[in-house]
Amino acid sequence: MNGAESLVKTLVDTGVKVCFANPGTSEMHFVAALDDNPDMRCVLGLFEGVVTGAADGYARMTGMPAATLLHLGPGLGNALANLHNARRARTPMVNIVGEHATYHRQFDAPLTSDIESIARPVSAWVHTSLFAHEVARDGAEAVRVARSSPGQIATLILPADTAWDPAPAGPAAALPPTAPAPITDAAIEASATALGSGEPAMLLLNGAALTEQNLAQAGRIAAATGCRLFSDTFVGRVQRGAGVVPVERLPYFGEQVTETLTGMRHMILVGTRPPVSFFAYPGKPSQLVPEGCQVHGLAGPESDIAAALSELADRLGTPRQVAGAPAGRPQPHRGGTLVPEAIAAAIGAWLPEQAIIMDEAATSGFAIPTATAGCPPHDWLGLTGGAIGQGLPAAVGAAVACPDRKVLALEADGSGMYTLQALWTMAREQLDITVVVFSNRKYAILQVEFMRVGAHNPGPKAMSMLDLSDPDLDWVALARGMGVEASRADTVDAFNDQLQSALAGRGPRLIEAVI
Amino acid sequence: MNGAESLVKTLVDTGVKVCFANPGTSEMHFVAALDDNPDMRCVLGLFEGVVTGAADGYARMTGMPAATLLHLGPGLGNALANLHNARRARTPMVNIVGEHATYHRQFDAPLTSDIESIARPVSAWVHTSLFAHEVARDGAEAVRVARSSPGQIATLILPADTAWDPAPAGPAAALPPTAPAPITDAAIEASATALGSGEPAMLLLNGAALTEQNLAQAGRIAAATGCRLFSDTFVGRVQRGAGVVPVERLPYFGEQVTETLTGMRHMILVGTRPPVSFFAYPGKPSQLVPEGCQVHGLAGPESDIAAALSELADRLGTPRQVAGAPAGRPQPHRGGTLVPEAIAAAIGAWLPEQAIIMDEAATSGFAIPTATAGCPPHDWLGLTGGAIGQGLPAAVGAAVACPDRKVLALEADGSGMYTLQALWTMAREQLDITVVVFSNRKYAILQVEFMRVGAHNPGPKAMSMLDLSDPDLDWVALARGMGVEASRADTVDAFNDQLQSALAGRGPRLIEAVI
Repeated sequence: MNGAESLVKTLVDTGVKVCFANPGTSEMHFVAALDDNPDMRCVLGLFEGVVTGAADGYARMTGMPAATLLHLGPGLGNALANLHNARRARTPMVNIVGEHATYHRQFDAPLTSDIESIARPVSAWVHTSLFAHEVARDGAEAVRVARSSPGQIATLILPADTAWDPAPAGPAAALPPTAPAPITDAAIEASATALGSGEPAMLLLNGAALTEQNLAQAGRIAAATGCRLFSDTFVGRVQRGAGVVPVERLPYFGEQVTETLTGMRHMILVGTRPPVSFFAYPGKPSQLVPEGCQVHGLAGPESDIAAALSELADRLGTPRQVAGAPAGRPQPHRGGTLVPEAIAAAIGAWLPEQAIIMDEAATSGFAIPTATAGCPPHDWLGLTGGAIGQGLPAAVGAAVACPDRKVLALEADGSGMYTLQALWTMAREQLDITVVVFSNRKYAILQVEFMRVGAHNPGPKAMSMLDLSDPDLDWVALARGMGVEASRADTVDAFNDQLQSALAGRGPRLIEAVI
Repeated sequence: MNGAESLVKTLVDTGVKVCFANPGTSEMHFVAALDDNPDMRCVLGLFEGVVTGAADGYARMTGMPAATLLHLGPGLGNALANLHNARRARTPMVNIVGEHATYHRQFDAPLTSDIESIARPVSAWVHTSLFAHEVARDGAEAVRVARSSPGQIATLILPADTAWDPAPAGPAAALPPTAPAPITDAAIEASATALGSGEPAMLLLNGAALTEQNLAQAGRIAAATGCRLFSDTFVGRVQRGAGVVPVERLPYFGEQVTETLTGMRHMILVGTRPPVSFFAYPGKPSQLVPEGCQVHGLAGPESDIAAALSELADRLGTPRQVAGAPAGRPQPHRGGTLVPEAIAAAIGAWLPEQAIIMDEAATSGFAIPTATAGCPPHDWLGLTGGAIGQGLPAAVGAAVACPDRKVLALEADGSGMYTLQALWTMAREQLDITVVVFSNRKYAILQVEFMRVGAHNPGPKAMSMLDLSDPDLDWVALARGMGVEASRADTVDAFNDQLQSALAGRGPRLIEAVI
């Protein structure tokens, strides 16, 4: 057994069952070792941003890390944006980054770079293996770190000789991950007191707080105290739909958050931190906790959030069960030119039960959360780190994780272009994903932000930097070019037909919604 | 005048005339400032790898840095692979990376990351501006570093408030870049002695040594001493063709290099370092200087290479003029199925004078250097850092730099997929680029390397990681999806017709060569 074989076996033995890969020469022994392990599924991405975004989507749906296989510093660089998103989602992930043989690094061959420096900003743990006999142990440690609460990114750099040299001791045993941190009675007491004060109060939820089970506990708390339930603007995953306790989502722009939270006196944090503005704007605050509002940390992201919510609910003497969101679907629009509201209504009208929505629709998707609030239970995955190009890859990962569920990827055209290579992986793996591309042919958010930051009236050169027309992208051609069936809709009726057909079928399908 | 305006004016005043951009909210003031400067051309890329690859291609052809505009850490991450290539090409470049406002960083908003850590591995200079009144000076310093010999990457991180705050002092004056290092008489003497020994000798050339003018000096040296002229395997830019002194290119695989250099007794380095194997392989050497061969450092990459070569040539008492490569074109093939040799012959037969070839053809392009050796003078740009996805973006930059010259991008399909978004920029800017995609539907080099690294016989799972079929990519559809006229050829005659037509016309054109 060589180092690579000992590593792959260790990964499989410790619960890592999928490897999203874009390998190169220095990873060939790892690829050969994958071949020997029927329990490891391999999924090829034609660009590394696809690979890490897919691993993120997979882990959000399974709770278990996938492995990624990346090619030296440049491969890691290409992977970085979606690792940034995964870090913000607190996703467990194990990156295997191939490296030159230990003795070869000193010669500074063309592909040599400082991989550790590139990895550190997105990784909770970075380690370079130095000997083949250490690789299995290092791999077990990587999985341990990745699985430690609440979920972390571990990056193991694998020099080629540590992959091909003998590792006679074989695989390493699993190491116990750090469990969620226990909740103190003082924290529960403080939150209970605040919620019992009769003053306006809210829970701000993220991470594990957004599972159906934990939302049920939050719902008991709200029923007992009248507090409101909010989530952060961008969440890794929230369970929602008919029968699930609903949460309000904090708006995107800081001034909207401030307005929404006006008068709030107590903010209880569960799996998150106090809200801050996504960007800074001249003369506007960065911190969004309203004046006079006390912040109470019930449970940090790494804490035992399930225990925190259920113990707090019990302390408040609330009923065991509260009602979730009422069932109900909007009427689809009929006739006329396609607009975002009509797309939202159609999705609300026909979203399948247990669908997984990956939302990277940006400005075009504003109406969809409301339109789907009463749909059958489903999962909603968000763009957590602001690095666009997450949606199509994460949809790939979610579909690999949940082959029996329909994935609906809502994709802004500008964002979709970053990692459109994901379409090819959808086709190769015949993943059950419906992609709706919102083709407004501009970076619409930037046209808003240009004004909001106080830049002067833009001239044609500035506006051309925010515009995706000239030429228009043809998403039907792009999808077909990668083997995905596709169609275009610029009327409501056409979109309705195409969406119903896509949702009724199986396999990858793209609809370019021209709006 | 605000900080962003002072920076853009400084860039323009110090000779930076093009900005390749993919901006976000934190860069809106910089975008507004671009609008005010008619002397700054802005080119939008729909992915940051396009932006930095284009800046690389532009600088290789002009010798002057372009600016790039990137959006925080994830934007820089997306840009990193082509920055790695640019660093290896010793390309001058000024990256402007937008960042949160200085006071906003502490709140760790979703897009926050350690930008400096990401930038350092690819940058000779990394600096974060802290005040608006320092931005112009920092910009002048960035340009100074970028233009310092032999060409470097400078990364200036621009917090949003340093862009929007007032900078009443306005732009900064240009700072003198570090000039090429002078050549010592001792180095010239040592090289002259080695070359005069009568023993087998060679010059190994890279960087500025590969201009037509400097090759003429190298040719004088070869004529006087019988030494051979080699370039590194991968070079940023080499001038070649009829009348230009030709250089042999070191082969890619280490054992081929060793074989080629067997018996060599003196290796004179001019603008480069001793050759090393691109990757390590079990049991094979990393260093490729043959046993018994003495290495003489005539001129490092940062040195005054022109002076080194001309002084050495003068010292050897050689004639002022030597003949360059003889003119001559291959006969195009006729009839039959398309194979790489037929593509090479067609390119050799019809390459226009003063064409710029961007070579990222990988295994499919092996016959093209020989087939074009006697073509009219042209430039050849190579993949310098091994990070695939450079070719299409660098072709964009070369075409922006040289609007009157035809650019021919030779692109492997696997590599092309990394940054296919470059096609859209070709269409928007109506760049005169002919792209030939070598569609062999696999990572062919990896199928070779899999064996060379000594991995066992690959099974279907391993092979599927090296294969781009299932489904086949349709490059004609992909190109049309981004507004580029395209066609497919799988016969020699079809390819010949399509290539002739593309080279005769103007504007972007893609040929998918199915081989």
